[in-house]
Amino acid sequence: MSSTEQDLQRGSATIASIAAELGVSIPTVSKVLNGRADVAPATRAKIEEALERHRYKRRNRGPTTAGPPLIDLAFHELDSAWCIEIIRGVEAAARVAGVGVVLSELGGEHRPQQAWLDAVLARRPLGVILVLSNLGQAQRHQLESRSIPFVVFDTAGEPPTGVPTVGSNNWSGGLAATRHLVELGHRRIAVISGPADVLCSRARIDGFRSAHEEAGLTVDPALVRHGDFYVDGGYEHGMQMLSLPDPPTAIFAGSDMQALGVLRAARELGLEVPHDLSVVGYDDLPLARWVGPALTTVNQPLLDMATTATTMLLELARGEDPPLRRVELATELVVRESTAPPPEPKDR
Amino acid sequence: MSSTEQDLQRGSATIASIAAELGVSIPTVSKVLNGRADVAPATRAKIEEALERHRYKRRNRGPTTAGPPLIDLAFHELDSAWCIEIIRGVEAAARVAGVGVVLSELGGEHRPQQAWLDAVLARRPLGVILVLSNLGQAQRHQLESRSIPFVVFDTAGEPPTGVPTVGSNNWSGGLAATRHLVELGHRRIAVISGPADVLCSRARIDGFRSAHEEAGLTVDPALVRHGDFYVDGGYEHGMQMLSLPDPPTAIFAGSDMQALGVLRAARELGLEVPHDLSVVGYDDLPLARWVGPALTTVNQPLLDMATTATTMLLELARGEDPPLRRVELATELVVRESTAPPPEPKDR
Repeated sequence: MSSTEQDLQRGSATIASIAAELGVSIPTVSKVLNGRADVAPATRAKIEEALERHRYKRRNRGPTTAGPPLIDLAFHELDSAWCIEIIRGVEAAARVAGVGVVLSELGGEHRPQQAWLDAVLARRPLGVILVLSNLGQAQRHQLESRSIPFVVFDTAGEPPTGVPTVGSNNWSGGLAATRHLVELGHRRIAVISGPADVLCSRARIDGFRSAHEEAGLTVDPALVRHGDFYVDGGYEHGMQMLSLPDPPTAIFAGSDMQALGVLRAARELGLEVPHDLSVVGYDDLPLARWVGPALTTVNQPLLDMATTATTMLLELARGEDPPLRRVELATELVVRESTAPPPEPKDR
Repeated sequence: MSSTEQDLQRGSATIASIAAELGVSIPTVSKVLNGRADVAPATRAKIEEALERHRYKRRNRGPTTAGPPLIDLAFHELDSAWCIEIIRGVEAAARVAGVGVVLSELGGEHRPQQAWLDAVLARRPLGVILVLSNLGQAQRHQLESRSIPFVVFDTAGEPPTGVPTVGSNNWSGGLAATRHLVELGHRRIAVISGPADVLCSRARIDGFRSAHEEAGLTVDPALVRHGDFYVDGGYEHGMQMLSLPDPPTAIFAGSDMQALGVLRAARELGLEVPHDLSVVGYDDLPLARWVGPALTTVNQPLLDMATTATTMLLELARGEDPPLRRVELATELVVRESTAPPPEPKDR
């Protein structure tokens, strides 16, 4: 297809032209756009295909739902205190705007299931915030054709051009945490990050590598691990690495929860933190300052990130062009009790 | 008013009779019932008053909102990992039923503000779950007149007769935790519970007292404290009581978060848990098994409680009569590492 043909197609289709092309009635096309269930699946699939092929985009949102407007907030998984910070931020920003928040969990998947998207289309929210998730191209077009904007919070994958995102500077966070350990004198430093297919994990490990490079240190591949962000992952990788013949003297964890697991492994192995082992967390959840020892960690401004994502989404929903579509808030190292110089070789 | 008059009034009013009585149009009464904003405040107040006076109750819910049905889930405050357990349970049970969940925070109030209730009336959800909150009588009637059922999760006050509730057996939890400490040999046991006006706090303290009574022990009023359920409260009360001339050898906290605060206070005072001090938490949040030392705590089945509340609400919304309207799930003591026999007097 030439670019001229593409230009002609993009946005030139109307409900009427699509109905005529497919030999269905205008109300049938309209029903599919409004997420109504009373259309035969085959007809619906045919109409969705035509909407995508013509890059149809509704000009206005049509009748809104009864009651106050809603936004959808979807987590790939609801777990730990990490989610609560984001929920609080989104709920508070939405409440000020008189908007309700519908909360969903995508069952651990980083890509929503169609059933969830169908419910969103039928609900017709002002917009959607996806946390650690992303949409497939067809799903993305389904929202776009209904003029339902979406924002991705803390990108899990490489988001396609033009997708608005809010995150934090993971590379800087990884750099600052590792520099801190290097400056304390550590030379064998381990990192446990999140899954390799989550972009923020890779950025943090790259920051970790950069801090090694600038100090002229070599990274031992045996000390670079990918886990999930949960306590169990930190515990298991911690146990494995601390049982190596030449164990690390410091571990940089991918989350505060993971760091809790590392602390647990250290206790079970009779290592005292920070005397025998330094541990750095990530996120700076409220509990980080309360656990023993209080965690040195990288502060991720989750509440501010949630507020920013909500504000951006509501701007997009009003048809405004937000000044920034890719926002990265700054991370900051918070030094507490879980880091210290490495033990003298004779101590180990 | 005689009981006959009351019987006549209860439920006998219609939208038409109320409109005629007040000299307003039928659509105006209907708009107020549907939470529409385009009615003058004075007229609206007059109609609400008549709806309440006549104990009007809508026979059917009228046109539902566009899109899949919703329920409202409102927390008095969104904080800590405690909320996440409840949110997960409600979201999962609602998702299976094809129902969306709108999440709100009531800004720390145990009684919702009218702005929140107005949004609910306009949203017309299938029903409402209130966590640690309760409705005023007028608010309760506003939901009842719209046939929007509600369930109270973990009652914060004495719920009026007929209000469906889901909670856990707080008295048994307090009894089991204290018995465990008595059996270990503790004689000076402190309790930090939630606020005195929260019913579950009082039930736990009563269980604490009963365990003392059955062992022939006296409760020292200086060791009975009310705080909030957060870490800071546990830290402050912990610091105060552990600095007494005759400090407790065991502290029973009102939540795992509060127990974290007690552990912190112990560390700062150079006390080793459990050797110098035993600590029992409440809730059994996932983090309880990961902190150091792992917490002995009272398991509250928050996920099951949330599922039960959601199922009960959906039954009420379908016009069914749930087999039980006051459900209390069992609590269970989980013994981990934070409790041990008290130190020998010479140790202290």
